[in-house]
Amino acid sequence: MREVFQQELQEVQERLVEIAALVATSMENATRAFNESNVSLAENVIADDDKIDVLAQELDELAINILARQQPVARDLRIVVSALRISASLERMGDMAEHIAQLARYRFPDKVVPKSLRGTFSELGALDVAIAKKLVELLRTEDVSLAEEIRNDDDRIDALHLSVFDKVLGETWKGAAVDTVDATLASRYHERFADHAVSIAKKVQYLATGDWIPVAL
Amino acid sequence: MREVFQQELQEVQERLVEIAALVATSMENATRAFNESNVSLAENVIADDDKIDVLAQELDELAINILARQQPVARDLRIVVSALRISASLERMGDMAEHIAQLARYRFPDKVVPKSLRGTFSELGALDVAIAKKLVELLRTEDVSLAEEIRNDDDRIDALHLSVFDKVLGETWKGAAVDTVDATLASRYHERFADHAVSIAKKVQYLATGDWIPVAL
Repeated sequence: MREVFQQELQEVQERLVEIAALVATSMENATRAFNESNVSLAENVIADDDKIDVLAQELDELAINILARQQPVARDLRIVVSALRISASLERMGDMAEHIAQLARYRFPDKVVPKSLRGTFSELGALDVAIAKKLVELLRTEDVSLAEEIRNDDDRIDALHLSVFDKVLGETWKGAAVDTVDATLASRYHERFADHAVSIAKKVQYLATGDWIPVAL
Repeated sequence: MREVFQQELQEVQERLVEIAALVATSMENATRAFNESNVSLAENVIADDDKIDVLAQELDELAINILARQQPVARDLRIVVSALRISASLERMGDMAEHIAQLARYRFPDKVVPKSLRGTFSELGALDVAIAKKLVELLRTEDVSLAEEIRNDDDRIDALHLSVFDKVLGETWKGAAVDTVDATLASRYHERFADHAVSIAKKVQYLATGDWIPVAL
């Protein structure tokens, strides 16, 4: 029984890694679609989000199934419950990548943000992609130093997110209302993507080290 | 054992109702703070969000504890897992109310949105409050007709959310960039609040009727 359970936990972990890898690819494509105004890449991201949703849902069913059959307690129980939460966060990260791709598609053939903000968004996108790739590795290896890196990347993203508002609300901003709306939404999507990654990283860190970090915070 | 379990499930349900009621009060206060530029009410909402977070976290601990001790299966297991998900959604609804209150505080003593949008946001706020109150009743009574009403209210919110963009991107919009940013964010927060409510309503409906609605969608 115990051996079966360990195999099932490994299956859960592998599926989380698989979903995280898809999310990383989606964010990479969304970032390119956004920066380069690539509408077919944007459409790929939008289509891929359905796959992420289905995989997350299948993982949830597996986790609930494991709870029912294996009746885990203590740390084992927390691993399975955490998997459910991680899956929900990955699903939302996929949604954020999709929203970014949708902005690229709406504005095609124009670029989403004016020149003065492209450097900022290029950095935001690159950081989100880096975070997503680190998340894949963190889920695969449970190397908690990656959790720390993800938190640091997120701090930088928060600073960039604020700098978008500074620019949009500053005296030199010449953007039309559509540019202001798009910059506001795009910045929020990038920031939320990273927030979900940090939340996942905390859970993995807790599971790897036993340090309890409250789930709701 | 079975009787204890039923008592514990009732405790879970009562706590969900309690948190939902706090969320409804927060959204009511956030809406008033937003519409009337009431900074002290905004500060109440911001303080109350910490309470919601703590209660959601305590509920999660209770649910995990029930899983460990009672080892529920089948429908009972799904009730407890759903409680974890509903708690996470309520916690996010509290965050949205807090974000709306923060906008009111930032712009005080000015109002957050210009006159031309106040009617729309007043309706958005009233609908979110109505949804939150229906959610309290739905969680308390499991009267699934309320789930249908919540979905209808959400459709109206989605239409209003789109109308905000129509107005902001229309030719008659004279708002400054700060108005555009605030209207974009405020509209998104109102819309997400309702989305979470719909997601909770679907779960309650599933539990009440046995119709499985995939969790990730």
